[in-house]
Amino acid sequence: MKRYRNGEIWDFEHEVAVASNRQVILGLDGGTTSTVCICMPIMPLSDTLPDPLPVLARAVAGCSNHNSVGETAARETLEQVMADALSKSGSNRSAVRAVCLAVSGVNHPTDQQRILTWLRDIFPSHVKLYVRNDAVAALASGTMGKLHGCVLIAGTGTIAYGFTEDGREARAAGAGPVLGDWGSGYGIAALALTAVIRAHDGRGPHTMLESTILQTLGLSSADELIGWTYADPSWARIAALVPVVVSCAEAGDEVANKILKEAVQELALSVKAVVQRLGLCGEDEKNSFPLVMVGGVLEANQRWDIGREVMDFISKDYPGALPIRPKVEPAVGAALLAWNELMKECLQEAYRS
Amino acid sequence: MKRYRNGEIWDFEHEVAVASNRQVILGLDGGTTSTVCICMPIMPLSDTLPDPLPVLARAVAGCSNHNSVGETAARETLEQVMADALSKSGSNRSAVRAVCLAVSGVNHPTDQQRILTWLRDIFPSHVKLYVRNDAVAALASGTMGKLHGCVLIAGTGTIAYGFTEDGREARAAGAGPVLGDWGSGYGIAALALTAVIRAHDGRGPHTMLESTILQTLGLSSADELIGWTYADPSWARIAALVPVVVSCAEAGDEVANKILKEAVQELALSVKAVVQRLGLCGEDEKNSFPLVMVGGVLEANQRWDIGREVMDFISKDYPGALPIRPKVEPAVGAALLAWNELMKECLQEAYRS
Repeated sequence: MKRYRNGEIWDFEHEVAVASNRQVILGLDGGTTSTVCICMPIMPLSDTLPDPLPVLARAVAGCSNHNSVGETAARETLEQVMADALSKSGSNRSAVRAVCLAVSGVNHPTDQQRILTWLRDIFPSHVKLYVRNDAVAALASGTMGKLHGCVLIAGTGTIAYGFTEDGREARAAGAGPVLGDWGSGYGIAALALTAVIRAHDGRGPHTMLESTILQTLGLSSADELIGWTYADPSWARIAALVPVVVSCAEAGDEVANKILKEAVQELALSVKAVVQRLGLCGEDEKNSFPLVMVGGVLEANQRWDIGREVMDFISKDYPGALPIRPKVEPAVGAALLAWNELMKECLQEAYRS
Repeated sequence: MKRYRNGEIWDFEHEVAVASNRQVILGLDGGTTSTVCICMPIMPLSDTLPDPLPVLARAVAGCSNHNSVGETAARETLEQVMADALSKSGSNRSAVRAVCLAVSGVNHPTDQQRILTWLRDIFPSHVKLYVRNDAVAALASGTMGKLHGCVLIAGTGTIAYGFTEDGREARAAGAGPVLGDWGSGYGIAALALTAVIRAHDGRGPHTMLESTILQTLGLSSADELIGWTYADPSWARIAALVPVVVSCAEAGDEVANKILKEAVQELALSVKAVVQRLGLCGEDEKNSFPLVMVGGVLEANQRWDIGREVMDFISKDYPGALPIRPKVEPAVGAALLAWNELMKECLQEAYRS
């Protein structure tokens, strides 16, 4: 251990007797809403993973997107949640073999480098460290740790992220509302709010969204929407209106239907851009590849099923796209990814020696 | 004076000898960027206004939009800028006959009422008080205080606001970016940034905006735009990119041209919604009415002239629309509005007695 960065966070290491000489892996999924850390034991190398997966501990913390809460707070949250998971599992840092930190806000190699540098300060030098965008953990949660195929996330925000088997990667969207993450929960809801304002001031057609949204928010007039929006412009608060848009569309409202249809096209476009750039579908566009679908907007719990519509749209162009709805959470995906990469490196080292 | 709300702000009233028994009017234009207060003497009632207008003092302060800076800060800014203008003009509150406070963020009668209540605490009860959305001051700056016709503002944000001669009013847009103020400077620039991201990740066509915007911002890759946007998401910072979009459009870039053409349609649509609801164009749609045009986006300093295109669009439907580019600033418009309203009330009182 190079040095103890933060005495308090790691105090438990001196106090708790370490359970065994069992070696572990940490997987982190850090989003804008919350951060989850999973501690898993090193599994033996085999073709099939144990079911259920052996999870030693799970810890949860708040937002760790440095774009939202700043560098220092993001770092402290990530360090604390790793310490919590290790402490709960009765391990300490000397048991750690690999860490995969998948956090939102990693958009550029400089973001990655910055996080790697401070992770290096926390863990001994033999620990393998992987820093990824949180979308990569979601992909791995569907492919059980293998970086191949494409993931589409559509929750409050949206992103498509893909990998070829030889390690090339590409992404589309995931740039936030200012930079046009159309098709996201925020994007859908903001268009619905805009439709209410436009109907009210005469720029757009009347729509069921007017009465439904005002009633949902407990407002008496569309003018009050302006104050409501400014009072707290958090993306998640606005995205929470998606179910209202879906029920209006199911009831036949044209404006709501148009908003959802455009969202479907936007989400499919993100996937297509990634698949095209990586050539995931092969030259004849028929190769099969995993398409992992994650997030509230894509969940099939309504008659107007955005996820199914997106899939139908994509299948027309790429019949080989294999839809996967992950059974484990992204943090487990991150841990599996770390395990996969570690095994690959061990095999390479064994081959070399 | 009911009571002295804020000792410090009004201290000058005890210290400075009042110049004369001259009576004055205050006009305020409070926007998201700055707040301007104008102090004018009461002018004799006549058909023509003096040219130049007699302005006794002008004071400037920061943002006074309660949605942006909160209630307390907005109120203090407004009170301070009025005190500064009065102090500079050598007057005090006992000289004030009328105040017109035109501030952004007044979107609902409750906003108006809240501001009126605390203005009432500052000024003696005989002072006439008018509280309006800041768009109304911009209209009055083109009509020299008369509330008739329509104003279109397109700067960082956009709004259309209109009045009939018998006092009915209507507005369109002015709800902020979340609620779809398309056609605003922010709206134009955000679409241009989005086009750069979409070209970069394969969702959209390549465009000259990519190299031009990255060069303007000193960034080396489109990925860095995400960090740039989050670093400071102020609307004005993003809207400042409009000239880049205009020059790309002038150089023949299709994406930039499409963005500007859609902005023109959106801005024209706002005006049409207001004109239609108020019937400003009469039954045969040919009546004449003033159309005041204000804001950086509409200023005719480029070959690709957004303001002229908007006017051409509107003239097709409403040949009676008379474009006006104001020669005085909105705060003067607010003062003229207060003077106009005061004169109307005086005439009505004289008629009654």
